[in-house]
Amino acid sequence: MNLDEQLAYLTKGAEETIRVEELRSKLERSARTGKPLRVKAGFDPTAPDIHLGHTVLIRKLKHFQDLGHTVIFLIGDFTGMIGDPSGRTATRPPMTPEEVAANAETYKAQVFKILDPEKTVVDFNSRWLDKLSSRDWIALASKYTVARMLERDDFAKRVKEHQPLAMHELIYPLAMGYDSVALEADVELGGTDQKFNLLVGRTLQQEYGQEPQVIMTMPLLEGLDGKQKMSKSLGNYVGITEPPEIMFGKLMSISDELMWRYYLLLTDMTPGQIEEVKHSKLPLEAKKEFAQRIVSDFHGGEEAKWARGHFESSARLRQQKGALTEDEILHENEPVVLHNAFNRKLPPLLVELGLFTSNSEAQRKIKEGAVYMAVPDTGDKRRWQRLDDPTWKFDAATYQGKKVIFRFGHRLVEAELTD
Amino acid sequence: MNLDEQLAYLTKGAEETIRVEELRSKLERSARTGKPLRVKAGFDPTAPDIHLGHTVLIRKLKHFQDLGHTVIFLIGDFTGMIGDPSGRTATRPPMTPEEVAANAETYKAQVFKILDPEKTVVDFNSRWLDKLSSRDWIALASKYTVARMLERDDFAKRVKEHQPLAMHELIYPLAMGYDSVALEADVELGGTDQKFNLLVGRTLQQEYGQEPQVIMTMPLLEGLDGKQKMSKSLGNYVGITEPPEIMFGKLMSISDELMWRYYLLLTDMTPGQIEEVKHSKLPLEAKKEFAQRIVSDFHGGEEAKWARGHFESSARLRQQKGALTEDEILHENEPVVLHNAFNRKLPPLLVELGLFTSNSEAQRKIKEGAVYMAVPDTGDKRRWQRLDDPTWKFDAATYQGKKVIFRFGHRLVEAELTD
Repeated sequence: MNLDEQLAYLTKGAEETIRVEELRSKLERSARTGKPLRVKAGFDPTAPDIHLGHTVLIRKLKHFQDLGHTVIFLIGDFTGMIGDPSGRTATRPPMTPEEVAANAETYKAQVFKILDPEKTVVDFNSRWLDKLSSRDWIALASKYTVARMLERDDFAKRVKEHQPLAMHELIYPLAMGYDSVALEADVELGGTDQKFNLLVGRTLQQEYGQEPQVIMTMPLLEGLDGKQKMSKSLGNYVGITEPPEIMFGKLMSISDELMWRYYLLLTDMTPGQIEEVKHSKLPLEAKKEFAQRIVSDFHGGEEAKWARGHFESSARLRQQKGALTEDEILHENEPVVLHNAFNRKLPPLLVELGLFTSNSEAQRKIKEGAVYMAVPDTGDKRRWQRLDDPTWKFDAATYQGKKVIFRFGHRLVEAELTD
Repeated sequence: MNLDEQLAYLTKGAEETIRVEELRSKLERSARTGKPLRVKAGFDPTAPDIHLGHTVLIRKLKHFQDLGHTVIFLIGDFTGMIGDPSGRTATRPPMTPEEVAANAETYKAQVFKILDPEKTVVDFNSRWLDKLSSRDWIALASKYTVARMLERDDFAKRVKEHQPLAMHELIYPLAMGYDSVALEADVELGGTDQKFNLLVGRTLQQEYGQEPQVIMTMPLLEGLDGKQKMSKSLGNYVGITEPPEIMFGKLMSISDELMWRYYLLLTDMTPGQIEEVKHSKLPLEAKKEFAQRIVSDFHGGEEAKWARGHFESSARLRQQKGALTEDEILHENEPVVLHNAFNRKLPPLLVELGLFTSNSEAQRKIKEGAVYMAVPDTGDKRRWQRLDDPTWKFDAATYQGKKVIFRFGHRLVEAELTD
């Protein structure tokens, strides 16, 4: 990749990069000197059960790794090992070094499905924060003004609403920012909600005579519902240790719109490659390929292939058994474009749509009153109406371009009616 | 002393005691258990050249010592040894341990003129503050809210005026407050300007599970001008290492009003004893006794006696030689109350006032035009008018109760005219 391609690849999906020019010059210098960039991201030591939402950031780390840079997976154990220092609540007992180490192993087992273990430095910020002397802390605190710290959104809100804000909470962002100084980071990645903290690191590096890090914020991934951010507590998540078939099934349930966003944030494909898929594949096929790709990331290619097969056959099976809801059936089948829809009677149309194998069968079932249709875009409710006249024809003025769902028993087909 | 007398003695001259009831119960418990109270005051390590202003606090420590309690003279070397941690100015280079130790020796040499070296603990807060771990600092900071810290007058002012306030400045009061925790102080003394910091100590002790200290603020001593606070830079000070005669002279220059305040704040006399002096001595005499007492505190009784003699003889000498200004002369002589002032001619009045030895001499000098009078309260300017009629009498309606200054050559007498 040339420099422009590298920049496009690295900034793909990022919410904000401060600043792109600085990243460019760091990449240039790295290429010139052969010295890889040091790319850091911090992780909470208490939550090592990673879902796809977390992988957005980890995958961005991988992109830097793909280009030969050094990734530092930093576990913020300093705060975790302190717990609630005010001693007012028992909700956050301090973690022991053993717990931190155990969590780190769990983390590794999970993130090394994306990151290359050989090219990843796993570090702990207690390594330097625990060693800061009283003098170091005072010096650190002297590098930042109170006013600036209180600009942080959540602090400002709490001050405004007269909610208590303890002094140590103001110190934590300094400690986290100091991580970048200790690591001499060139780039720091974080969620959009981390922007303030990342900027503190940038400022502190300058105060300590270092070149400021580039900061890159990654969006918070929407959950399967496409609305709220992915989180365990909301249930709209895909855990990276979930079984292949569960993962595949969950991913098949997302909307097409969300699928393209997931393509952007959850794969290593370049923006160009994603565009190509968009133009060459039907959404259902693109979604299956996406799901297979993600399952493959965490379970390998064979498992992913099996998961896809499992999904497809079980979908068929369930459809045959009538075990699917109307929505499930429609969701798993592409609408068909039905040409020459207004000159023909119903039976040949229904045969073309695969609902019957012959015109006579279609005609008989229509007469029996067993065939229904619904026009979904007349409202949220799907109002079924019986098709009891085999000679009836669709009127072009009313139905041109409309999608109509036909139903016989448990079988449903959606068709777009055109000339 | 009984408990009430002890309380009166200890709170004498104090601006504020929070709270007197707590001090009473601490004193009671101390008397019961035989365990002396731990009474702490903190001192800046950079300014060991003590003047009388500083002694207000030191003397208050002595009062506790007089009653058998343990005084902790705490040198706040922690901040001094850090200097300006932001590194932005070169104005406050960090002090070396040697400098701190040297300053401590100078301090001791000075304060042990008031405090009993045997009963005084000299300590340095770097002893514990330097040893605080990262975890300790976070825990310390967690004990106090940002909002509360920003209530401190000077912080509030700077925030309001958008002047920079660095984070470490918010931490210093916590560090100073922690001193009380480390020392398990029962009482902390400070200037009125230290009230906020003393209260932080009180709060932190409770947070760390200790009984809160009683805090006692001492007023800032006015300088010799009676207006601004005593300070070296204003020149209105009496240094405790100044020579006896300089000290004595400076103290004789203060106003009567200020003298009584100095009596209260700079001596060990009880309020009752001071009242007694007020009623039994003329102000000039009271002032000489006061000056002698203070000089004696720092140079011993013999030197003080000598200084007083030196002052009196040199005052006479200078007065005789006309070397004094009108103000100096008037200042060093009490106004005389002149009875029966309105029925008599000028010569006997002037003889009674000691300006002449005989009526005939007075009459001659008046005729020669060598005698003047001025009524000071007609304005700031002292307008002299010649008294050239020996037969003139004061008019009671105009002069009743007035103070009039009479002058012959360099000799001046101030008299209050009454029936």
